[in-house]
Amino acid sequence: MSTEGLGNVVTQYFTCCEPPHELVLKSGEKLGPITVAYETYGQLNPDRSNAILICHALSGDAHAAGRHDGDKKPGWWDIMIGPGKAFDTNKYFVICSNVLGGCRGTTGPSSINPKTGEPYGLSFPVVTIDDMVHVQKHLLDHLQITRLLSIAGGSMGGLQAMKWCVEYPDMVQSAVVIATNYRHNAQQIALHEVGRQAIMSDPDWQQGNYYGKKVPKQGLALARMIGHITYMSEKSMDEKFGRKLIGKEKVGYDFSMDFEVQNYLRYRGDSFVERFDANSYLYITKAVDYFDLEEDAGSLAKALEHVSAKFLVISFTSDWLYPSHQLKTFVKALKANDHDVSNVIIESDYGHDAFLIETERQEHAIGHFLKRISKGVS
Amino acid sequence: MSTEGLGNVVTQYFTCCEPPHELVLKSGEKLGPITVAYETYGQLNPDRSNAILICHALSGDAHAAGRHDGDKKPGWWDIMIGPGKAFDTNKYFVICSNVLGGCRGTTGPSSINPKTGEPYGLSFPVVTIDDMVHVQKHLLDHLQITRLLSIAGGSMGGLQAMKWCVEYPDMVQSAVVIATNYRHNAQQIALHEVGRQAIMSDPDWQQGNYYGKKVPKQGLALARMIGHITYMSEKSMDEKFGRKLIGKEKVGYDFSMDFEVQNYLRYRGDSFVERFDANSYLYITKAVDYFDLEEDAGSLAKALEHVSAKFLVISFTSDWLYPSHQLKTFVKALKANDHDVSNVIIESDYGHDAFLIETERQEHAIGHFLKRISKGVS
Repeated sequence: MSTEGLGNVVTQYFTCCEPPHELVLKSGEKLGPITVAYETYGQLNPDRSNAILICHALSGDAHAAGRHDGDKKPGWWDIMIGPGKAFDTNKYFVICSNVLGGCRGTTGPSSINPKTGEPYGLSFPVVTIDDMVHVQKHLLDHLQITRLLSIAGGSMGGLQAMKWCVEYPDMVQSAVVIATNYRHNAQQIALHEVGRQAIMSDPDWQQGNYYGKKVPKQGLALARMIGHITYMSEKSMDEKFGRKLIGKEKVGYDFSMDFEVQNYLRYRGDSFVERFDANSYLYITKAVDYFDLEEDAGSLAKALEHVSAKFLVISFTSDWLYPSHQLKTFVKALKANDHDVSNVIIESDYGHDAFLIETERQEHAIGHFLKRISKGVS
Repeated sequence: MSTEGLGNVVTQYFTCCEPPHELVLKSGEKLGPITVAYETYGQLNPDRSNAILICHALSGDAHAAGRHDGDKKPGWWDIMIGPGKAFDTNKYFVICSNVLGGCRGTTGPSSINPKTGEPYGLSFPVVTIDDMVHVQKHLLDHLQITRLLSIAGGSMGGLQAMKWCVEYPDMVQSAVVIATNYRHNAQQIALHEVGRQAIMSDPDWQQGNYYGKKVPKQGLALARMIGHITYMSEKSMDEKFGRKLIGKEKVGYDFSMDFEVQNYLRYRGDSFVERFDANSYLYITKAVDYFDLEEDAGSLAKALEHVSAKFLVISFTSDWLYPSHQLKTFVKALKANDHDVSNVIIESDYGHDAFLIETERQEHAIGHFLKRISKGVS
């Protein structure tokens, strides 16, 4: 069994929901065809019982682990997925797909609408976490996987994992839900709203019809800057940047950049624009804001009534975007239903980003959990 | 003695630093003439020993209490200033002035530069908290007040209060420092930076030359929206708005507003634009970001060495913009210098806004403190 990294991986594509079999969205609108970008790591075992679906966060994609040919950086959760890692590809068949509405290979607002031959733009229907999950179900059908050993995700990925357990209770044996909430609350909606307003007030946004023209760079960069502030903790920002100046002895007494933290935000904003579509940012944040497990069923306990998955719930002490107490409420509702749930609160200064950084303690918790779940799986 | 409200009050104006006696700013640049808008409440006693200077926060102004003729709303800290209130105008002579760089009567970027006959715009020099304090000193000289019974302020007002105690140790008998930090840290700078970027990327900003033309409404509104998120706590936002929809039964599955919290932010952003100048927002946030009591003196303990004021330091448990632990560090440095300091941490769900909302407990702490300080003052 290999304990080297995953090495080179490739993104694959699959198309479903061709007319007249369009996907009926939660809004009632229909959408199709839908192409899904996905990657898989490891081998599906003969009885097809070792599959784990990884769900990505807001700005993630199907490329969760390994390297694309020539790339310097591996996939976004390579610290957790690979031979001998938490999601051990020597044992498990790991799948990750780009979400519906995204811009990294799966159909979204930047895709060509086959009816017009033009990018959808704002004519793309508003999608929800439910719709993302339904598209993932099509992918699993395509891969002939009828049961998941586990489903895992942090942040927006956690919402998908929760929804899977509720929507397809017989298909999900276990779930790893990290740094997320069972409903997007007012502060979380507010933070998204400001990002959306930044994009929509960029004159280059042009009501979403900017494809082939100047893209709304500044709006999207601003949205991303706000995001990055919420992903770090007060402490991690202070330790990383403090009041360090950018290569000068004293402040400039002008409106150019003085502090390294300003430079960092600018860099993060600008580099995001290179790889992400502004309309996708609107659609995906909206999908997240619409998420409310409680509302859909009347109460959280009721929503979780028929779930059969065993849960590992992880949060981080310094995550102020998705603070631990929110997932505690989720854990409580699971316990009220006598579900099997482990709640792990990891002491970390990394804020929300911790789920992408804290290797050792997450790996330990997840590895241990999966070992317990997969007993008997060969 | 009256226990009614303050009734009608008026803003007064005073001009100083006329050339060739311009104010030398921290940057080394010179600025003058400078007009200061200020208000006073209560009566100065015969030995001029009952004066209290109130310093306002980022978006505040000289109108701290009472009502302007015809106004429905009183000044921004009317809950604390007035007959029988914490800053009891039956006993104390309370002064509040608009800060240098502001847009509410005191000279700032929207003022006319007498040399050109045009608004300063970005030709206005970058100012600091130090410079604001120096202008306040000119005002006190004008009012022939040589010693303050107390100086008080929340948020940016707290920075000014701290600076006063350090800069004019013999003039300040006591200080009430609320919901602030002794140095602006990376997260605080980052949040300001995003607001500034929002303004400066609004095409109507025009490098600050928008006076008499279209103002950068959207940029300033965005900056204010970000501000408001940081002024509330996760809990207060959730209790006030939760996931309440705006007068509809279900979400719209579009990019119009669905949730009340979106509406609130929009309202707050739009109404701010009516009363505040975008360039002033740039200058004032920059002044705050430059504030670092520690850096100026080498260490916090050293900065506070010669201070003679007695301190009341107040913070709020749910204030995540200026969390209590930051002022605890300040209190520790005061204690290390054997200064007289009371540290009050008020249990509140209102976040940073608490200093403008939590009447009873603040009033109790401040009233008690001032009574102790003013013993012997008639």
